[in-house]
Amino acid sequence: MATHRFTPDRWSNVLGTLPPVLTVASGDILIVPTLDAAGTDAQSVARASRPNPMVGPIAVAGAEPGDALRVDIIRMTPSRPLGWTRSSLAANVVDPDRVRSLPANERVNWRIDAEAGTVQLDEAVAGLDHLVLPLEPMLGCFGVAPALGQAFSTATSDRNGGNMDYRRFGPGSTAWFPVAVPGALFFLGDGHAVQGDGEIVGTGIETSFEVEVCLSVEKGRRLVWPRGEDADHIFSVGNARPLDQALQHATTDMLDWLTSDYGLSATAASHLMGQVVRYDVGNVFDPAYTVACRIEKKWLPPR
Amino acid sequence: MATHRFTPDRWSNVLGTLPPVLTVASGDILIVPTLDAAGTDAQSVARASRPNPMVGPIAVAGAEPGDALRVDIIRMTPSRPLGWTRSSLAANVVDPDRVRSLPANERVNWRIDAEAGTVQLDEAVAGLDHLVLPLEPMLGCFGVAPALGQAFSTATSDRNGGNMDYRRFGPGSTAWFPVAVPGALFFLGDGHAVQGDGEIVGTGIETSFEVEVCLSVEKGRRLVWPRGEDADHIFSVGNARPLDQALQHATTDMLDWLTSDYGLSATAASHLMGQVVRYDVGNVFDPAYTVACRIEKKWLPPR
Amino acid sequence: MATHRFTPDRWSNVLGTLPPVLTVASGDILIVPTLDAAGTDAQSVARASRPNPMVGPIAVAGAEPGDALRVDIIRMTPSRPLGWTRSSLAANVVDPDRVRSLPANERVNWRIDAEAGTVQLDEAVAGLDHLVLPLEPMLGCFGVAPALGQAFSTATSDRNGGNMDYRRFGPGSTAWFPVAVPGALFFLGDGHAVQGDGEIVGTGIETSFEVEVCLSVEKGRRLVWPRGEDADHIFSVGNARPLDQALQHATTDMLDWLTSDYGLSATAASHLMGQVVRYDVGNVFDPAYTVACRIEKKWLPPR
Amino acid sequence: MATHRFTPDRWSNVLGTLPPVLTVASGDILIVPTLDAAGTDAQSVARASRPNPMVGPIAVAGAEPGDALRVDIIRMTPSRPLGWTRSSLAANVVDPDRVRSLPANERVNWRIDAEAGTVQLDEAVAGLDHLVLPLEPMLGCFGVAPALGQAFSTATSDRNGGNMDYRRFGPGSTAWFPVAVPGALFFLGDGHAVQGDGEIVGTGIETSFEVEVCLSVEKGRRLVWPRGEDADHIFSVGNARPLDQALQHATTDMLDWLTSDYGLSATAASHLMGQVVRYDVGNVFDPAYTVACRIEKKWLPPR
Repeated sequence: MATHRFTPDRWSNVLGTLPPVLTVASGDILIVPTLDAAGTDAQSVARASRPNPMVGPIAVAGAEPGDALRVDIIRMTPSRPLGWTRSSLAANVVDPDRVRSLPANERVNWRIDAEAGTVQLDEAVAGLDHLVLPLEPMLGCFGVAPALGQAFSTATSDRNGGNMDYRRFGPGSTAWFPVAVPGALFFLGDGHAVQGDGEIVGTGIETSFEVEVCLSVEKGRRLVWPRGEDADHIFSVGNARPLDQALQHATTDMLDWLTSDYGLSATAASHLMGQVVRYDVGNVFDPAYTVACRIEKKWLPPR
Repeated sequence: MATHRFTPDRWSNVLGTLPPVLTVASGDILIVPTLDAAGTDAQSVARASRPNPMVGPIAVAGAEPGDALRVDIIRMTPSRPLGWTRSSLAANVVDPDRVRSLPANERVNWRIDAEAGTVQLDEAVAGLDHLVLPLEPMLGCFGVAPALGQAFSTATSDRNGGNMDYRRFGPGSTAWFPVAVPGALFFLGDGHAVQGDGEIVGTGIETSFEVEVCLSVEKGRRLVWPRGEDADHIFSVGNARPLDQALQHATTDMLDWLTSDYGLSATAASHLMGQVVRYDVGNVFDPAYTVACRIEKKWLPPR
Repeated sequence: MATHRFTPDRWSNVLGTLPPVLTVASGDILIVPTLDAAGTDAQSVARASRPNPMVGPIAVAGAEPGDALRVDIIRMTPSRPLGWTRSSLAANVVDPDRVRSLPANERVNWRIDAEAGTVQLDEAVAGLDHLVLPLEPMLGCFGVAPALGQAFSTATSDRNGGNMDYRRFGPGSTAWFPVAVPGALFFLGDGHAVQGDGEIVGTGIETSFEVEVCLSVEKGRRLVWPRGEDADHIFSVGNARPLDQALQHATTDMLDWLTSDYGLSATAASHLMGQVVRYDVGNVFDPAYTVACRIEKKWLPPR
Repeated sequence: MATHRFTPDRWSNVLGTLPPVLTVASGDILIVPTLDAAGTDAQSVARASRPNPMVGPIAVAGAEPGDALRVDIIRMTPSRPLGWTRSSLAANVVDPDRVRSLPANERVNWRIDAEAGTVQLDEAVAGLDHLVLPLEPMLGCFGVAPALGQAFSTATSDRNGGNMDYRRFGPGSTAWFPVAVPGALFFLGDGHAVQGDGEIVGTGIETSFEVEVCLSVEKGRRLVWPRGEDADHIFSVGNARPLDQALQHATTDMLDWLTSDYGLSATAASHLMGQVVRYDVGNVFDPAYTVACRIEKKWLPPR
């Protein structure tokens, strides 16, 4: 299990089948700096262009179509003291006849205190003096190359992951992606210091990070959609528009997960899901929206 | 503050401007038995027809259009030991090309132990022996008469509330509805012993209850959508299809709430909402879906 | 077959179970003046309030739940020389991030020349000197009382018809509605001199009319959604949001129509529909959108 | 203006930035054989794999980002006497609770008589003896490479065109695509002998063709979405899910077209569009749906 400290000098604006910038073995640990969504690094230097420049692709030796790539997010350390957001709710998350009354949409800075584990506005805003948020880092965009030679902008997401902007994909969680090409070709970037459900101002608190992940191949674990796990939950992730379809994808995937891996009949899975599922809105801003279907582990049958 | 123990002998399948079955004063407490979604009472006797027969309307003296009706849900005591669900995920929550493979959709019984505070399947289902759910009662359908002389089936919901099937509307929570007619005309029923997000099997665990609520008029508090509060959160509720529009309604209402009652500018409200909102899917089954936009009270500015 | 010339002195803003203003026999002809969408009559006098005040309900003797009400639209004669529209595309029909750049939304007058059969702007607008539209009258809102004691605003539509704003419901066409209450309880109003697909400025060219219809009961013709026919086509009408669901309703109803009335198997109906259906967007503005699934009569099997 | 008779020996399942199989000059004519959606050629030999294998990319010399590629569809001659469809309405175009009752979904053959200009079922189907359809060829999938190094499956569509399955893209019509990469990189294939609105059985009548197109560069004509023109209409094409968003894209693009090329103010464009637009549903089956916003040329202001 090697540890790779990798410093990229080029970034990608798509998740696709590109020449790897690095090849690792299954089980290896990767420590990399990530740029913010606009391409700015830890020294506040612009290094790459929008949208969401990615580190990658990282090839994982031995990964083949039909396998799953497991990504354990071990650590995300903010690498500079400033992050930023937009200053208005996005036009698509309010009633259409109210869009005209939304405020100006400008860039706003937030101060990140990595040691204290807090994030707050970098300017005084009336009524928000009390707003000291806990630092809750997450990867806005990560995933693998899609099938068929496709390549998707890092602004959006699909079966291969991508810009899901789902706040549970942070340190301590695990993600799985369906491998569609040899080597899986993993990409990551677009870290957020904090983000509410839905990414409804069009950003989280965008900043640069040092990210540590462990990449492993799970042979023959054929997936359709990304899946995840944290200390207390498992979740299936659907990426699509509208929310209704993203929810259908996530719900169908959870049904498949419970019946294939936990031995439940479709009827038993319905009983369980009907009374215990929780839905999270990852993002309701990007071209594809993200909905997670989540279950507390305590409700899962023994495997 | 009188307490009314009321035993209805007729029920309503719409929320509309009908003759009141009872009139109470603002601040009075109401204790009523509710039928289950199919119209069956505590003695398992069929008393009324589908969908979701309601107790009501209850007129609240002094309520006028432009006021809000505040409903404190004090207590929901299950009044019989059996509840029921459907046995299959609903057709509209899975990918359309997977509908054909859903299991048979039959009625399934659950045992409710009100004293122990638990709910479990009434039959052995492989892999679900461990499934002993905590009793978490909620009102599936409640609300007031809509404006304009309209009357809506208790199968659906709108600005006046109705069949929102949102699990946070349980004991300890408060709901507010926009009053559209003199007396507000309150309806309630369709209690669930437990329900997951989305009501994705088309039911919660449906049963009869004794429900205790306090009804109060908040003069001049003009609302557009239902709002709610529990120990730790406030939430705005949007009812519409698709989920995208329900979410737009809820988000717009929360923006209005923060700017009108908490003194935030639209920009400050955007800063706050962007990083702290949580979205809940009340139901994704009924004709109108329900999405709540929720904020933890600890993030609210002092009023 | 009597002819009723009826002059209403009250109007309704809902389609619901209200006391009839008139009762006719099946096959009778009804000639009535209609107000425009804002409640203004042929003399430009405000007579009733928004939205879309209706003439009705008209009871049709003998109509019972499970029957269909057939409405032949014989004639719509504009009763004043001015109509009006709004001056901007509706916020919900453009990309959300473009709403801010829409023009001011004011009332604009159009001149209607009933004799010449033309409609044109009542003011000079650069680039539109040539715009002399053919008069193509249609009923924006008409239908029957819904089931269950429900009552729906004339701003929206449902299984019982209502504010469908579908331009093929004009003179020479026939509509059928599912009868849900004794007497059917028919309502009509909201005539448009012209309207494009979708009613995307939120109005057609709104004006008052004299309308002549023939109302007949088709016993035992059980319908779910409105249906229609003109010289060359039959069409099923779905009313819902989003467009996807309205289209599902219309498509399902056409499948049912072809299999029940035209003797096709579901497979044969699929063959036919797949290659010959046309979809029309009635409205994409009202609370419920309207989509028609339409087939040219020349492709129908002999009945 | 050269004419290129080109016979491909490899095909693409994505629209992306790939090495050109041919380079032509602006204004050149291209005559190529196309495979059917499943990859079968004029001799009924399987030559390539699904989905929708494309001829291309064809580079057009001089095309640069910010230009438009104009494609005049001159001729589509069916190259074999058999086409095929699926035998059931797609699951996503009917009400979800009706999916279970759809018929079996098998491959069905149709006979194409190119000389007579007719298409009919190749087997006897009760009730459809009369069904002799006029041959109305169209290109289901065509377009250019998207921006950013993206590559999209030929199953779907986006700003760069692709699998729009819009029946007005047939002989005699012109399409324009936004050029995003040097040479534009044009792809075409997936011809249909006939197709109804929406492609609701998941196919048109799929067959192989000889296609003749003229490719020209319009310098500096910056587009966002595909546009088209036939003898009587112009149309803007939006590709997205749900239909509501596809319609928003198409409507916004038509507004831009009328204001930029026809000199109308946004108000004048609203007046015109409100009363004369027609919406077509290209497809309501593929991952992205297609809606066209169409205007009859007789209503356009002089340019």
